[in-house]
Formats: sequence, structure tokens, C-alpha cells
Amino acid sequence: MTRSLPLLAALATLAALLPAAGAQTTVRVATAAELDAAIAGAGPGTEIVMADGEWSDVRIRLVGTGTAEAPITLRAETPGGVVVRGASDLWLAGEHLVVDGLHFRDGAAPGDAVIQFAVSDDSLANHSRVTNCVIEGYNQPQRDQTDLWVRFRGRHNQLDRCYLAGKSNRGPTIRVDLEGTPSAFNYHRITNNHFGPRPPKGGPSAETLQIGDSSTSMSPSHTLVEDNLFDRCDGEVEVISSKSNFNEFRGNVFYHSEGSLVTRHGAYVTVDGNVFIGDGANPYFGGVRLIGTGHRVTNNYFFGLRGEEFRAPLALMNGIYRSSINRYFQVTDVTVAHNTWVDTESPWQIGVGSNVDQAEVLPPSEIRDQPPVRTLFANNVLYNSEGDGTPILRVDSIDGIEFRSNVIDNQGVPFEGVEGLVERDLTMTEVVDDVWVAMDGVAAVPVHHGFEFDQIDRDLFGQPRGEQNAVGATNGTAPEAVDLFDPSRYGPAWFRPGAEADGPGQTHAVRTPDELARAVAEAGEGDVIELAGGAYEIVTPLAIDQEVTVRAADPGDRPVIRYAGGAGTPAFEMNPGGHLRLANVVLHGGAETLAFAPLRSGMSSLYTLEVEDAEISGFDAVLRAYKHSFADLVRLERVRVRDVANGLELAAEDDDRGDYNAERVVVLDSRFETVGSNVIDYYRGGYDESTVGGTLVVRGTTVTGSGADDADDVLLGTYGIINVDLSGNTFRDNEVERVAVLWGAKNNTHADNTVERSGEIVVEQNLPQRLVY
Amino acid sequence: MTRSLPLLAALATLAALLPAAGAQTTVRVATAAELDAAIAGAGPGTEIVMADGEWSDVRIRLVGTGTAEAPITLRAETPGGVVVRGASDLWLAGEHLVVDGLHFRDGAAPGDAVIQFAVSDDSLANHSRVTNCVIEGYNQPQRDQTDLWVRFRGRHNQLDRCYLAGKSNRGPTIRVDLEGTPSAFNYHRITNNHFGPRPPKGGPSAETLQIGDSSTSMSPSHTLVEDNLFDRCDGEVEVISSKSNFNEFRGNVFYHSEGSLVTRHGAYVTVDGNVFIGDGANPYFGGVRLIGTGHRVTNNYFFGLRGEEFRAPLALMNGIYRSSINRYFQVTDVTVAHNTWVDTESPWQIGVGSNVDQAEVLPPSEIRDQPPVRTLFANNVLYNSEGDGTPILRVDSIDGIEFRSNVIDNQGVPFEGVEGLVERDLTMTEVVDDVWVAMDGVAAVPVHHGFEFDQIDRDLFGQPRGEQNAVGATNGTAPEAVDLFDPSRYGPAWFRPGAEADGPGQTHAVRTPDELARAVAEAGEGDVIELAGGAYEIVTPLAIDQEVTVRAADPGDRPVIRYAGGAGTPAFEMNPGGHLRLANVVLHGGAETLAFAPLRSGMSSLYTLEVEDAEISGFDAVLRAYKHSFADLVRLERVRVRDVANGLELAAEDDDRGDYNAERVVVLDSRFETVGSNVIDYYRGGYDESTVGGTLVVRGTTVTGSGADDADDVLLGTYGIINVDLSGNTFRDNEVERVAVLWGAKNNTHADNTVERSGEIVVEQNLPQRLVY
Repeated sequence: MTRSLPLLAALATLAALLPAAGAQTTVRVATAAELDAAIAGAGPGTEIVMADGEWSDVRIRLVGTGTAEAPITLRAETPGGVVVRGASDLWLAGEHLVVDGLHFRDGAAPGDAVIQFAVSDDSLANHSRVTNCVIEGYNQPQRDQTDLWVRFRGRHNQLDRCYLAGKSNRGPTIRVDLEGTPSAFNYHRITNNHFGPRPPKGGPSAETLQIGDSSTSMSPSHTLVEDNLFDRCDGEVEVISSKSNFNEFRGNVFYHSEGSLVTRHGAYVTVDGNVFIGDGANPYFGGVRLIGTGHRVTNNYFFGLRGEEFRAPLALMNGIYRSSINRYFQVTDVTVAHNTWVDTESPWQIGVGSNVDQAEVLPPSEIRDQPPVRTLFANNVLYNSEGDGTPILRVDSIDGIEFRSNVIDNQGVPFEGVEGLVERDLTMTEVVDDVWVAMDGVAAVPVHHGFEFDQIDRDLFGQPRGEQNAVGATNGTAPEAVDLFDPSRYGPAWFRPGAEADGPGQTHAVRTPDELARAVAEAGEGDVIELAGGAYEIVTPLAIDQEVTVRAADPGDRPVIRYAGGAGTPAFEMNPGGHLRLANVVLHGGAETLAFAPLRSGMSSLYTLEVEDAEISGFDAVLRAYKHSFADLVRLERVRVRDVANGLELAAEDDDRGDYNAERVVVLDSRFETVGSNVIDYYRGGYDESTVGGTLVVRGTTVTGSGADDADDVLLGTYGIINVDLSGNTFRDNEVERVAVLWGAKNNTHADNTVERSGEIVVEQNLPQRLVY
Repeated sequence: MTRSLPLLAALATLAALLPAAGAQTTVRVATAAELDAAIAGAGPGTEIVMADGEWSDVRIRLVGTGTAEAPITLRAETPGGVVVRGASDLWLAGEHLVVDGLHFRDGAAPGDAVIQFAVSDDSLANHSRVTNCVIEGYNQPQRDQTDLWVRFRGRHNQLDRCYLAGKSNRGPTIRVDLEGTPSAFNYHRITNNHFGPRPPKGGPSAETLQIGDSSTSMSPSHTLVEDNLFDRCDGEVEVISSKSNFNEFRGNVFYHSEGSLVTRHGAYVTVDGNVFIGDGANPYFGGVRLIGTGHRVTNNYFFGLRGEEFRAPLALMNGIYRSSINRYFQVTDVTVAHNTWVDTESPWQIGVGSNVDQAEVLPPSEIRDQPPVRTLFANNVLYNSEGDGTPILRVDSIDGIEFRSNVIDNQGVPFEGVEGLVERDLTMTEVVDDVWVAMDGVAAVPVHHGFEFDQIDRDLFGQPRGEQNAVGATNGTAPEAVDLFDPSRYGPAWFRPGAEADGPGQTHAVRTPDELARAVAEAGEGDVIELAGGAYEIVTPLAIDQEVTVRAADPGDRPVIRYAGGAGTPAFEMNPGGHLRLANVVLHGGAETLAFAPLRSGMSSLYTLEVEDAEISGFDAVLRAYKHSFADLVRLERVRVRDVANGLELAAEDDDRGDYNAERVVVLDSRFETVGSNVIDYYRGGYDESTVGGTLVVRGTTVTGSGADDADDVLLGTYGIINVDLSGNTFRDNEVERVAVLWGAKNNTHADNTVERSGEIVVEQNLPQRLVY
């Protein structure tokens, strides 16, 4: 065999030359069969052009071997001109593949992932790129059905300039998988994407980005996440869940996102130059939450965050002694340097998750009692335009943290300080919306030079930290041009998020039941339907699948809607994405019907229900949630409910996986009279400490003559709900043992309620629950 | 301040020039004070020369800042001419320090470590080197006192050409510590050292090398261990315990070492080109044991190993589901390629440590039930000159392992095979002692090309694997010059291990008690003391502190040694390192005295006791071990023990830490008559699954009329002892309930015993024990 080597070498040389010749090939395809054929024939340099138009139920398997100089490219004829819909997906395998300009909508992945850098466990993609693509609302029919929109495997793959928004079912939007050595040391790049709104899912597994998982968290990943916009990513408490080693998060903007960047598992993660923007009010917008070893948090900027505990502006969690691999490693060897917090509440929360007081109801392997150690906070700036009583919130000991050259301007409001955090009067300059830079007052504070601080050689805006350096996220000078929110930095140039929904709603006046039904059916997003006074007899549910307002034309002349549909059907059927605002109506139904209900199945997204100044009577239930339905908000304000068998039923979860039925339930200034049972029944099953919902607020409300049929003998069921506020209510003459059983260890409170002949309000400190994980 | 920068820069330039001028400085020092002064004045290029001679109780703190080109050097005037003794140590801090040619002996570290690359938590050494040094027997007075001989901290430090032997107290010989980011990514180098004999310690914490620990096992280490000789490193079951990530073990020779190279914690470890040599008989010599993710085991050679389970030639352990960080991670993503096993028994043991049958006595967090997955065995060669019935020992499922292009020559002996392991007739050539290379028969087997196999570009001997490649540890050709055992490769050139003990023992003839006492006191290593017949009345213990034989000059005329010393004293006092061979004597003592005993305290090393053809009577005990004493071997052969209150007492451990009192107890063809209690009482407390001792063998022995006073009512106490063999014995007329209680789950067996009026032999499958860790 060795004798033929010169010939083989010559052939190899020839083969190496051929692809360059093939680099010119362009193939236009208009059908799936043509696409498959083109892929089968593709070599280095082949460009496959998908014809503009809708491609339905197409399973693209881009398998081939390109080269760095001459990749195999699959692109839309016109960027965005190819809409991929239905049961479609795009999986890649091979080397040096590029996909450019596809638009996924109106469908759902038929397999585990819409886009996947693999076609099987043995056939992965490497050095491949998906760019300029959009995935919008490409959801499974029910929220408990799990999938991914982008699944990374292999090495050196890239997702850039894409727009992904609206994932509402279970599963991270993007997940990087590290099983198998060929997917370790992956050096993937996720850059310049726009992650649009992801609605709250309720319960876990709704990250926008997850990198690794606990069982592969010992693997080196090296995924780079840079210059992305995370825009209202509200899926769950973790916007990003980093679960492997050596990942880097640089230059990203987190805008009004109800979660945090979390180093959940894995060590030595870099969080540098990111911006976290809140609104000064919403307590769900998060910052950075740290677990584990060796992380470096530098040059970041935090504004207007009000999150607590898991969603703190900066949370350093307590660890578990000798934690198992899927729980909480202690924070050790962490550096937090050159960051700035402006108008954030309790920006530094140390020992978050400490649960030593739960020892009675949790096993020892769950007790987070190991506070951070060998950790350095240096050269950080805290500025509060209104002073903060606890800029350092000590949930556990902070003795393991060294503070050096940190500065605070707290407007003179006293707080428990530490050596290494000095008070100074600072002058702040707004360089772009919500981004304030400390100018005067920081120069006098000497910069601490810690281990490897020479590597912090640029500031938040990329300015050098050489001769000109300062504490805080910037080097002490004003940046020349800041474009953190420039839309051209994120997502495809051809796509404008929310463009289709921008039109203002129209108003439709209706006078008859038929007109009402037709108006609801034909309404556009944001439309308003105004009912003349009088009675409306309805026998078919009114389906709400977008934002619609239904209200009296004249608030002084309330229309009466009488629902006489089939047993178990609702007057208003809440469909995925439906948002009903109902105001100034009287709603009456038969004893076997429902006022409101989501679909029994196929709730691919959440719904919102708001009712004001209304009267509801006669029904079997006001609202009946089904197992996989999820409401972002259920709000009753100045509503009188009377003579119904059941009130608000939000307790359809039966498997204790933490998939509860509503994120927020708000009842204000309302009355419940003669409600047989379940005045409110709101339930979250299973213990998952990273879930921070739901929320129940009942204020200024009167409940009388109700609960006689309640199986639990509890007027307001709140089992497992994290945030409960009962205040200023009156409970009178209700045949129950307890008004409510609150969870003392969580954020459950009651105040100023009048309770007469209605049992009592009970607080139980610890609630025994089944562990979810 | 900025205005003075030009001046500062000029000064800095000047300072940078000065060290070059100082590079010539040599300072000779003769006292500790001079040494301290020289260090205080040292700069780049300073060479400090320690005068030849003994330096006692000197605590060297080599603190300074050298440069790569001009380090600060501390060296012996003549290599090896400086003996550092007593309570001395050598700690370093700073940059670019070198220590050359010191000899540590006759002492013990006054602190935690003899040599340490740090002087405090805040003051570490980097880019520093200790070379050409020796540490011999520098032990703490008791084995439970913990220290290290070399403790690495910081980064880029090196230990090379050193000889370290004889550590007998608790603590690894060398430990690399990773606490704190300045000690992560350390890239230390441990090269060309000779690790001489380390005696068994009994129980854990006697590794020759430990890199990291479980609590820092998520940290990247990158320590390189290359071209070292591990020579009879018997301290415990792990010769090397790798407990961090990315360590590399290359080109080392493990010679007759009673343990393994273990990837205990941490991931992505490289084990390449190492040689493991056994003797074809000793079941304690180990190979490689794998736990965790991403390891690559390539180009290694294994010969004559007979180890089982934890000491298997290659062990892949079972993991624990969601293991805590200090227990057992599952084996995943491991590659075992291009290795050769010659004459090893059950070379591949898969699922080692499975303990699903212990579920009754262990908590779920201890159950190792996760077999290896995503693991590849490729291009390996197995050769057995006598066929092996189980070359693949399946302790658990091997379904998670892929086998490709492996070859076995099993001499036609049948075994349960797998696809991917083919049988071939191989011809082996011995290229150096014990190293056999497969020549003919491998060429026909195509080499499997797995993921990143292009990186396996050299073979065991450094030959290229390019055009010429083959399965097995070599590329299919004979290497030109193999020098694996060339002593010039390992340790300092100036030092010859064992040189002082090489002389043959002398023989001393004695006729009187005084002559006997003097002969024992003056005997040299290996000497023989021959006693004429007659009686020897002794009142002072005979201290044995080296290898000494005491025997009858004429075996047919046995001398009688009568011991009449103080209560509780022994006739023969076993000192650290003592090894007594007693033969053909009659030994009689008072009822309050002992025949043999170690020191009550100060047992800095182990002892060995061998008695043959002797008669022992009258004593309170034949052998009484104390808490911190440890015998490598207690052997009685053809010994008659009669009329003593106690026999062999080896149960002084009282804190259940696993520090048992003897590694091996062997009783052959002996008689025990009228022994009141503790005929044998041998105990190991605490459950530590990595301890594989002790060993008790009782064969051909008769026990009669004994045990009447035994508190436990057990004739032979064996609680916690892993290996017990009771066979061919006779137990008659003993007043006990049980002869022995054996541990069925471990290697406890009994056969062919005659038991009459002595209770029974009981086997308990599972033994409840306190967990040690």
C-alpha cells in the first residue's frame, strides 16, 4: 500500500482544488424535493437559494461538508421572503454550513427543535452558522409540550442577527447541549440577536438561553454570548441559565426582562460589559445571580432594578455543603469588579437562598447554609438618587467577602456598611436612555488592583482602562457614542419586530347578539367593541384570540349578556394569546355554564382576563382553568359576583410539576356573594425554589354567604402560591373553617381584614411539598 | 499625579535595568541568620549558596521576586551536601525562585508541609522550582498526624529530579491545592522525580500525589505529571488521586505500586504513555481507575497486574445518580485507546464499585448504580500468555461502551466477548524488562479512527503514528532504544536510593542475656542474631528498630527466652521501621507482660513481625497494638501459643476513622491453646469504600480451650476487615458463641474448617458501618 502513496497524494491535492472550482455553484429550489436534491449534490461553495414564498411542512436536513473559505450556503431568495411554516424544521450536520434569511412562523417543530446543529447523535454540525433568521410564536399546542427553538450541538457553531420571540411552551428558547466530547469545548457564538418578548410560562423550563445542564456541568463549554438584546424575556426566573464552564456573556442588554443571568452550574464564567435595565417598579426584573466558583463579573451596569432574592440586582447565593451536582454549589473565588448600580434596591444580596430555617421540611441535602467565600468586590459604584437602607442585604454572613475601593452615594441615608465601601458625593451623567455614568466624585477613589485586574483593560463602552481608569463600569470619562439600544445592532436588518401589530385598534358598535358575535370573530388586535344597552342572548362561546375590549357604549346603561350555551361551555372562550378587557356589563349564565374558560387543550400560549365594573351571576363558575392553561393576569376590579357555584378556579395542576395556572390574580374592590365553593382556588404544586410565582392580591373586597360547599373548608385557596396579599377585605358569614392558610416562609401577608363568622386566617411557616427536580 | 508619569517611567526603566546587573550576585551563607539576611537582600539573579553540612531546625522562607531570565536561586554548596534536619521546612513566595540540591532527613515538618509554594494564604509562589532535592523518612511521630511533604499553591511551579521516599504518616506526599483563583489554571510541572517506597499506611490519606480536592474539583488545574518513577508507592489504594480538571499524566512508570492512578474528581484528564508494572502475583498492584467525564487513556502499557475492583488493571467505576461533589460522578465521554495489557487478570473491569446490593445499609446518595456511558474503547491490545476467563469483567452493564478495533490473544480460552474485540494470534517481543510489544498479528487489524484520534500522534515510546500505525500502545514497530527504567531519568543525579542500606547483614552469636541485649542494640540493618541453646532471662524490652533476625543457632536446641520485665512491657518492643524475624525459640513471660508490642506513641512508621517455629506462653498478650501503631505484616507460622490471657490484639482503633492496626495478619499451621480471650482481635472501624484492607489469613491452625473470657463471645474478631480467609482449621472446645462473624459482601471466605463445641462461623452479608467521609 505504501507504494501508491504518491498517487494518493496527487489525488488528494486534486480533490483539494476541486471545491474552489465548485465555489461558484448556485442552485435555486422551489420545492422540498428540489431542496433535498440540491443538498445531496452540494459541495464546498454551493449556494442553495430557496424561492420566496411559503414553505409548509418542510423538514430541511442540511447535511454536507463545506470549507471555511467555501461553505455550503442555504439562503432565502429575498431575506425574509421565505416563510417556513407548519410542521417544519431545519437541522444541520457536517462542516461549514450557513443558513441565511429564513422566517419561521405559523407552525411548530415536528421534532425536538426547530433549528438543530445535528441530525442525529452521531451526526453533528461544526463551524456552521444560522444568521438573519426569525422564529416567531412557533409554539407547540400546549405549554407542557417540550421543545427547543435552537439546539446547539457540535463545536464552533454560530447564531447571529436572528430575532426569536414569543415562545410560550415548555423548554428553553435556545439550549446548548454538551453531551459527548464532540460537543464539549464548543466555542459556539450567539451574537447580535434580538430575543423578543417571551411571556411568563409559570414554573420552570422557560429560559431564553440555557448552556449545558447539571449532568454535563463539569464539561468545558466556552460558549460566547455577545451583543444580544434580551427584550422582555419573562419566561421564568432565569433569562440565561449557564450550566457549564468558561462561558462568556459580554456586551448584552437585558431590557425589562423578568429574570436574571444565572451561573446556575459550572465554573469560571465571565459576565462583562452587560447592561440590565429595569423600570424602577417591577420587582421581577432581575440582574445577575451567582452560584459556584471562579466567576468574574466586571464592567456591568444595572439600572432601576427592584428584584428580591432570586431576582436581586446581584445575588450571591448560599450553597449546599457537598452539594449534589444538580443543586447549589457554594460561591467561591468570585470577583465582582468595576460594575455600577444606579437606583437599584438592595443591589448586593448575599447568601440568597439560605434556608436553614426550613430544616424541618427539607432534607439536609437541600439546606443552603454555605455563604460565599474567597470572593472580592472591588472598584464598584453604587448610586441611589433616593437612599437605600440596605445596599448590602445580608441574608447570611458576608465574612467570606473582601471589599476594596467600592463607592456609594446613598444621599446620606444610613446603612450597615463595610470596610471597603466608602461614601462619596457622585455626579451622574445620562449618556443614553437609562444609562448613567459616574463622572465627578469617583476620581478621588484609588482603583484597587486585584488578581488579574490587568485583564480588565476595557470599560463598559470599550474605552481603555490604562492611564485613565476609575472605579465603576466606566473609566471615568464620558463615552463618545453609545448605541446600546440601536436596533441595527440586533436581529436581521430585514425584520422589524412587532411591525404587524402596530396599528391602533378600531372601535365597533354593536346592538344585537349577532353583531356582537360577528364583531368578536372579526376583531383585530386592540379593537374595541362597544355594546348598546339592552340584552344579548348568546348560545355560542365568544372566542377571544387577541387583545379585545368589550364594554358598554354608555357606562350608565349596562348591557346584559345572557349566556345559554351548552353545559361546560364558557360565554367567553379564552384562546392562546387572547386578552379580554370586559367592562360595564352584566353577565349572566346558566347553572351548567361558565363565564370564562380557556381551551381544554391546545393552549399554546397564555391569556389575559381583565374585568371591571361588572356583575356576574348564575354560572357554574366564573373562571375555570384547565390543566395546561396559563393566564398571565386575571384581574377583577369592582366586580360583583353572586349566586354562582364556583368563583375563580385556578387549581387544575394535578401532577405537582410546578406548572400552575396563573402568574397573577388580582381582585380589587369587589364583592362575592353566595358563591358555593372555590371563591378563589389558586394552587401551585411541587417544591421548586427557583419559581417565584404566582401572585395573589385581594384587596378591598367583601365575601359573604359563600363557601358552604367547599370541600377544603377554605374560602380562598392559596396552596403553594409564593406571593399573597390579603388586605382591607371583609369576610362575613361564610361557612368555612378558614378564610385562608398562608405560607409564612414565603411572601404571604394579611392585614386589616375584617373576619366575622368565617373561620380564621391561618399562617403556616413551612409548607411540606414534594421536590420537583 | 499624571504629570509625574514621565519621571516614573524613567525610574521604572532604570529599575528594570538594575536586576540584570544583580544577576552576578552570589552569597554564601552558613547560618540561618545569614540565610535570612541573604534572602532579604536578594533580587533577580541572586544566588544564595548554603554551606555544606547539617542545618537543623531551620525554617527557610525564600521570599523574593526574580525574573525568568534571572531567578533567585537557593542551592546547596555541593548537591546533597546540605542536610536539612530536625524541625525544618522550606516555604517559598514570590516569582521565579529556584531551590537546588537540599537533602531533608532525620526530622519532620514543624508546620503543615516540608516544602510549600506559599508562605501564607496571601503570599504564594509562582514560576518557581524545586529541583535535585531529597526528602527521606521526614515523618511526624505518629501516623495520624497529618502533613504534606510538598504542597503546591500558586501557578507555574515545578518539582523535578527529586527523590521522595518513606512517608508513613497521614497525608499525601505531594498535594496540589487549588483554593483561590491564583492557584487555579496552575500548569504546575512534576517531572523526572523518583517517588521511592511509601509503606502502606492502613486507611485513607496516604496518596503519593493528590491534585485538588473534592471541594475544588470544579477548578481547572492543568498540572502536568511527566516522566516520574513511582517505585513501590504502597501508601493506599490511590497512588495518584487526580481531583481537578485537565491534569495530564504522561510517560510515568508505576513499578510494583500497591495502588492506582485514579481520576477521583474532575474531568478531562489525560493519561498517556504510562507504564504499570506488576509481578503477576501481588493482587494490590493497580493500574488506572476512572471516575467522571472526558478522560483520555491512551498509549499506556500494563503488565503483570492481578488487582481486583478498585485496583483493577483498568477500572471504570459506577457512578451515583446526581452524586454529591465528594462522591462518585458517572463515567461519561471517556476514550480508552491504543493501550496494551500483557498478562493482566481481568484487565477491563466495568462498573466497579456497584453496590446496589448494599441498599439496605447505605443511604440512596451512596448507591453507585450508574454504569459508564458515551465511552469508547478502541485500538487496544490484550495479550495473555495464559488465557483469561474474563478479560472484560462486567460488574454492571457495558451497554454504554462502544468497542472498536480491539484485539485479544487469549490462547483460545473462551470468554464472553463483545463486538469490537477480535481474537488474533499475536507475537510479543520484550523490548525492556517486563515491557512486551505486539509485533506480528496486529498489522492486519485496521485502526479505528475516533474523535480527535489524530491527536494520538505518538506511541508509548514517542514513535510517530503516521503512516506506520497499529492497534496497541506502540505503532507496530520495535522502538530503537527504550530506557523506561534508566535510573538517570529519575531523581537527583547525586543521590542513589537505598545506598546506605545495601550492605549485607552480619551474624552475631550470643550466649548470655547481656550479649543478646547488646547484640539487639548494636545490630545493623539485616543482621542475624543466633542464640546458643539455654535460658535467657530478660528484664528490659529488646527494642527492634530495623530488620533483625533472632534465631536459634541450632534449630534442634531451642533457646528459652524468659521475660520478667515490668507490667505492660513487651519482651520485644517494635519501634518504627522495626522488622523482627524470630525463629526456633521458646518465649515465656510473666502474666502482666507482653511478648510483642509497638510503642504506645511515636509510631512514626510501620513495623513487621514474623515468628516461626516458636512457642509462646505465660504472657498477658502475644501482641498488643496501640492506637496509632500499624504493622505491615504480622505472621505466625508453626507457632504454639498456650496459656496466655490474650492472643493477637489488633483492635486499638477507637474513633472509626479507618486507621486499622495491621495490613496483613497471617497465621499458618499454628496452635492456640488456653488463650483466655482475643485469640485474634482484628478490627477496622468506619466505612470507607476505597480502603481495601486489611487481610487476615488463618490456615491449618488449631484453636482449643480458648475464648472463655472473651467479652464478645467471638473467637476470631474480624469486624470491618475486607479480606478474611479461614480454611483448613480446627476449632475445638472453645467457650464462645461464634468462631467468627464474616462479612459476606466483602472478600471474606471460610472453607474446610472443623468446628466442634466452639459455636459457629457466621456470615453476615451487609455490615452496618459509620461513613468515614
